[in-house]
Amino acid sequence: MTHVPRLFVPAITPFRADLTVDLPRLVAFGRHLIAEGADGLAPFGTTSEAASLSVDERMRGLEALASGGVTPERMIPGTGCAALSDTIRLTSHARALGTLGVLMLPPFYYKPVSTEGLFASYARVIEAVGPGLRIYLYHIPQMTGVPITADLIARLDEAFPGVIAGLKDSSGNWDNTAALIAAFPHLEFYSASEALLPRNVAAGGAGCISATANVNAAGIAALIRALGTDAQPAILAQAEAARSAFEKLPLIPAVKAVVALQMDDPGFAHVRPPLVAPSSTQDAAIREAAAICNGDHALV
Amino acid sequence: MTHVPRLFVPAITPFRADLTVDLPRLVAFGRHLIAEGADGLAPFGTTSEAASLSVDERMRGLEALASGGVTPERMIPGTGCAALSDTIRLTSHARALGTLGVLMLPPFYYKPVSTEGLFASYARVIEAVGPGLRIYLYHIPQMTGVPITADLIARLDEAFPGVIAGLKDSSGNWDNTAALIAAFPHLEFYSASEALLPRNVAAGGAGCISATANVNAAGIAALIRALGTDAQPAILAQAEAARSAFEKLPLIPAVKAVVALQMDDPGFAHVRPPLVAPSSTQDAAIREAAAICNGDHALV
Repeated sequence: MTHVPRLFVPAITPFRADLTVDLPRLVAFGRHLIAEGADGLAPFGTTSEAASLSVDERMRGLEALASGGVTPERMIPGTGCAALSDTIRLTSHARALGTLGVLMLPPFYYKPVSTEGLFASYARVIEAVGPGLRIYLYHIPQMTGVPITADLIARLDEAFPGVIAGLKDSSGNWDNTAALIAAFPHLEFYSASEALLPRNVAAGGAGCISATANVNAAGIAALIRALGTDAQPAILAQAEAARSAFEKLPLIPAVKAVVALQMDDPGFAHVRPPLVAPSSTQDAAIREAAAICNGDHALV
Repeated sequence: MTHVPRLFVPAITPFRADLTVDLPRLVAFGRHLIAEGADGLAPFGTTSEAASLSVDERMRGLEALASGGVTPERMIPGTGCAALSDTIRLTSHARALGTLGVLMLPPFYYKPVSTEGLFASYARVIEAVGPGLRIYLYHIPQMTGVPITADLIARLDEAFPGVIAGLKDSSGNWDNTAALIAAFPHLEFYSASEALLPRNVAAGGAGCISATANVNAAGIAALIRALGTDAQPAILAQAEAARSAFEKLPLIPAVKAVVALQMDDPGFAHVRPPLVAPSSTQDAAIREAAAICNGDHALV
């Protein structure tokens, strides 16, 4: 089954200096990302510091995006929490707003947990939220300690046909993504890196949801358009260079710092603990990353 | 500095069949644990499935315990969440209720996180909650992936004298507990196993907060009374036998199943996903564990 490749941006969550959520900047940046060519947003994921936000903060943020011009049909917000009751509340809210789907972490406190327990957790959410729900499973074991296995996907897909829409593979393990695409060709699999986009799409995947899309959405959108053309190698090299510029930096704080430079607005740079802002010794690397990302834009 | 050794029970959270929190059983069981000889409760920790509860569910549960006869001065509820805003809300609520202190996990989604980021996280909570707060840090790296280091304790204790009351060491690594007791003799260190109680107290620790105290509170209270007496070896052996009976079972579901047998009320056994109830093949082991725990009671 062929999927039209797409870029969803796991948009950062801007904070005011007092670390409350900055809704106007959140909306302005969401609109900016769509204008840059993103197919949609995957807000309130890892890069969005969603785990550092309360359920209410996440709901108010999603509502602000939807009423501010980012249509729900373009969004797959993160709704998976440690607590089952929180996940149900957030997922019901996203469903009621009419989002394209939701990106759902497994419950991530207890470990190890059984496949049976994870199945029961997702099943409870699906039954509580009701018809029309589309779930993108979120596999990011380096944060959760709770992997989404092929066995779990198969059981959920069989029990709830049409509800499981796909999976974001943030493991960075291409072999895992490739095996899942082959096993479940009807589902959409997203890589977490634009560097894997050509391989993802060639294998039958659905695109990418990448942290660095916050600072290079236009470049990644151009890469998707260029897939299979003569322009692909040069545009891929540009996107890889932009991504590589963050390798020695704390990823999320550095992405926010580069967004602040690109938007010419230091208000985008604040992070919530436990993340910390880049140190002053990293200023030069931040500026270099911004320059590389901006250069990509100019070349595209 | 000598601490009077104490037992705080990380009380289970009973659920109804529909998995909503069962407040009447929560209160009845909290009172039962105090009647059995526990010095207090550490509700809404790992054994309580607190990570599977919403902030509101945790607040309503703590209020029910307090108004139901478990005085706040006997409680150190868990208040640490992944989200800073949730931790502030829960901790402010516990402080307003007048609990003895709070048992606070570090933010547990992002990893690795820096000591600076963890310090900033605790500092924000302390500043937001205000005077009178007493924090027991909660070190359980097998769940959180975020250890509480001696460096972090030293920085917090220096910046907020009197606020850091102690730490629960759920790592199971006695060398870690011993090193912390030696480094911070003015703080209270609790082991997560009654098997470590004699060593903990002999080294200057403050007692234990153990999952199996839910099913053997009287036995552990007796062990505390017997420390240093001729009765210690026999009572310790009993407590160790009770604890060992759970080694090949899923700990929290098995503890709840044994509570259900002890209270003669199957309503105590429900668990929330991602935990799953013990399988029927484990029935015999559950009954044996209950018998051993009950035998301990009879012998004490």
